[in-house]
Amino acid sequence: MFMPVGTAAAVKGLTQEALESLGAKIILANTYHLYLRPGHGLIRKLGGLHQFMSWNGAILTDSGGYQVFSLAELRKITDQGVRFRSHLDGSEHLLDPEKAVEVQLALGSDIAMVLDECIETPAPRSIAEAALKRTSEWARRARNYFLAQSQRDSELLQWQFGIVQGATFADLRQASARQLLEIDFPGYAVGGLAVGEPHEVTCEMTEAVTALLPHERPRYLMGVGRPEQIPDYVARGIDMMDCVLPTRAARHACIYTSEGRVLIKNSRYIEDQRALDPNCSCAVCRRYSRAYLRHLFAAGEITAAILATFHNVHFYLDIMRQIREAISFGQLANFATELRARYAAGPA
Amino acid sequence: MFMPVGTAAAVKGLTQEALESLGAKIILANTYHLYLRPGHGLIRKLGGLHQFMSWNGAILTDSGGYQVFSLAELRKITDQGVRFRSHLDGSEHLLDPEKAVEVQLALGSDIAMVLDECIETPAPRSIAEAALKRTSEWARRARNYFLAQSQRDSELLQWQFGIVQGATFADLRQASARQLLEIDFPGYAVGGLAVGEPHEVTCEMTEAVTALLPHERPRYLMGVGRPEQIPDYVARGIDMMDCVLPTRAARHACIYTSEGRVLIKNSRYIEDQRALDPNCSCAVCRRYSRAYLRHLFAAGEITAAILATFHNVHFYLDIMRQIREAISFGQLANFATELRARYAAGPA
Repeated sequence: MFMPVGTAAAVKGLTQEALESLGAKIILANTYHLYLRPGHGLIRKLGGLHQFMSWNGAILTDSGGYQVFSLAELRKITDQGVRFRSHLDGSEHLLDPEKAVEVQLALGSDIAMVLDECIETPAPRSIAEAALKRTSEWARRARNYFLAQSQRDSELLQWQFGIVQGATFADLRQASARQLLEIDFPGYAVGGLAVGEPHEVTCEMTEAVTALLPHERPRYLMGVGRPEQIPDYVARGIDMMDCVLPTRAARHACIYTSEGRVLIKNSRYIEDQRALDPNCSCAVCRRYSRAYLRHLFAAGEITAAILATFHNVHFYLDIMRQIREAISFGQLANFATELRARYAAGPA
Repeated sequence: MFMPVGTAAAVKGLTQEALESLGAKIILANTYHLYLRPGHGLIRKLGGLHQFMSWNGAILTDSGGYQVFSLAELRKITDQGVRFRSHLDGSEHLLDPEKAVEVQLALGSDIAMVLDECIETPAPRSIAEAALKRTSEWARRARNYFLAQSQRDSELLQWQFGIVQGATFADLRQASARQLLEIDFPGYAVGGLAVGEPHEVTCEMTEAVTALLPHERPRYLMGVGRPEQIPDYVARGIDMMDCVLPTRAARHACIYTSEGRVLIKNSRYIEDQRALDPNCSCAVCRRYSRAYLRHLFAAGEITAAILATFHNVHFYLDIMRQIREAISFGQLANFATELRARYAAGPA
């Protein structure tokens, strides 16, 4: 499954009706953003995230850690947790493993992620080892806290996932996975990958981890990926992915099609009456031309983002449908090769 | 009828599917903007505006005059027409009555407006008289040119409307109307009103004109208006209106409701679980809360504009439905009073 990203309880450019008509079953929302604005307390008071945003599908929330770690000078890490200043108003906050659980319980997401320590890559082995140690300790604390809450609230239906770290060291990745397996989560994520390292390394690290993780539990590779890379992750046992790429690219006039990427603002499309993707059956491709979309982007019309986002998310969800089909026919490797060929020449 | 404004061949924040589901039968597009970008030649080549934007409803295009006149230092008026520089690239263009016809024929709109001279108000009588004289001469030239084109093209199905000018002088307004009636148009517009003068003056001028215009032909008051003012225009014989207000206000978080205007960013709505308008049956009000909309605006989410625009346009189209109903029951005056009362206290 692919999860469109709805950072602040909205997938940019799509209404919940649009998401439903696209067949999206699960979206991702960012705990860091919702914690700061409008606040998890308010969302709990208003009935939880599903009710707040009127979304009946599933929701996965991240721990907030990734955003906090990218605040650079605005945060300080200790074994206790991360102290940080809000990028909105400079106010000081502490995010620790227990708090990350608590906030996500208030949001009422279906899947919650533990707080992990994200480091920059490439990283020296010693740094990676220290981060991994802390990540495992935090995972233990998060799990204990979560289970204690579960015992108090028998109606709690959230799943909590652990996150494998270990930078680009396969043995550290495997050590991380083993430590999480000992804690025992209903699902496992692989974090800290696809952050700049070569695609082959991402695949190698993923494979090292999925070799150990039970295949009957969901395995989630966080923050990926480019369409042509998705089959490679699936081939290595990944079940779940999320990425801002389809929505962000759409707002920047980059359209994903079965024939590769189309930078729709290019003047070559000025008279192009074809659909964005002539092989696509989405509502946008059935109705609007490249010439019209190009015009909307050139004129800075908000409708450009709406239409392009709808198509790109359809494209990603359709890739997942095609992957499931390819798997059922034993053709995943062929599908991966075909997709890579289409995208080899295009822009990133 | 009320025409949502689709300046550059798109109603900002709405797809054509959304317009259809709102029951919009006709939209307005701006000739000035489309002439400059993407160009009327391109739109003609791509099958006309309906096909270009995939809109099967009706389209009214203005003459481009209003935008050109508001360019101030970038334009120069003579009896021939208006010479102006593009606000996009500074290129020089001539807009004259014949050119305005030609461009709108290329766009293929259902209703085309003649080029008129728009002046600032309040204006001295002498200025208003001179502009009126020129407007009548231009209307004659536009009509002659249009009829010559019609004779050449038997499939031309466009209606051309004349525009009454005369600033805030009732006798000049009536003189303008008489001159247009002599030329004979299938519909008539009242231009140069609701540009800052008191509402009573707008009504007085409108009434002076509609007293002369045949009621079996459409009478169109350009660029209006605020919801509570619409019944006043209808009571004076106006059939058609257009205004950017519902769409522009929506993007600025101003929501029209049956209980008056709601400035949805206000902190009083932070926990408000009611619909934007508890008495509204639109898709947005059936699903989303004020608290959610407030959050989307606070977070700068594009989805805020999408949802608010949908509701506001629904509100305007619903006002028109209520007006038609009120007329059929002989209750228009009561409806006008009621609407005014609701909006008396709110922000503009």
